[in-house]
Amino acid sequence: MTAGKHCELCLNPGGHVLWNDAKLRVIAVDEPGYPGFCRVVWNNHVAEMSDLDAADQAHCMAVVNAVELVLRETLHPAKINLASLGNMVAHLHWHVIPRFHDDPHFPQPIWAPRERQGPGERPGCGNLHAFIRHRLDKLFPEAR
Amino acid sequence: MTAGKHCELCLNPGGHVLWNDAKLRVIAVDEPGYPGFCRVVWNNHVAEMSDLDAADQAHCMAVVNAVELVLRETLHPAKINLASLGNMVAHLHWHVIPRFHDDPHFPQPIWAPRERQGPGERPGCGNLHAFIRHRLDKLFPEAR
Repeated sequence: MTAGKHCELCLNPGGHVLWNDAKLRVIAVDEPGYPGFCRVVWNNHVAEMSDLDAADQAHCMAVVNAVELVLRETLHPAKINLASLGNMVAHLHWHVIPRFHDDPHFPQPIWAPRERQGPGERPGCGNLHAFIRHRLDKLFPEAR
Repeated sequence: MTAGKHCELCLNPGGHVLWNDAKLRVIAVDEPGYPGFCRVVWNNHVAEMSDLDAADQAHCMAVVNAVELVLRETLHPAKINLASLGNMVAHLHWHVIPRFHDDPHFPQPIWAPRERQGPGERPGCGNLHAFIRHRLDKLFPEAR
């Protein structure tokens, strides 16, 4: 599939880019109450994971997994939520969301109605982006 | 991690089992308005994808991908939604959800407030479970 003229993830990065290679980018998501929320956005306009070949699927999930691990090690969340939805923007992107007992929706998914405000920062957030870049640079040195 | 005494996915299959091997099971989810909704449940009690080693992660995603492909080919949904959340049941399980323009929440995620009832059946549903079993048996003959 080619780039979509009206697809916002074809037209824009979708947030502050923490890391990228030729295939994908890792974005810091600016969502109130969710410090540490990241997205892994596939660069080409494909809708579904099963539109990727096995090697690309594996690469995408390796990056999701690396982001998940850094979030766990740095922020110590109660849970990680992973989701590829794309009902409104049908351009493959993975939500990688650190969840905490005091976040705006816990234990509900972040798409349920908000139950509280949640803190704006978390201990560890200051180094998070640098740690994500460092981990991905180390895992995929050929991307530099 | 060992089996959880109070974990419902350790104590119960979690739905009608369509297919299983030593590592995981594929479940038909009985959710009103969502015919075709499946879950891939890891058998051992682990919370996160990053708790699995690389081979187990790859196997889990290969099964998720196979279910996704059969849902696409059989039901022709507008979108597939994939999610591993587990905030309430922290036992690794993947939601594999065929989404349609007339389902109860489209284009919102299924965890948002319901907007309509949605149909109880979809064309293709009658053969779906057999097709999922057949696809997985073919992909993983050693599981039989």
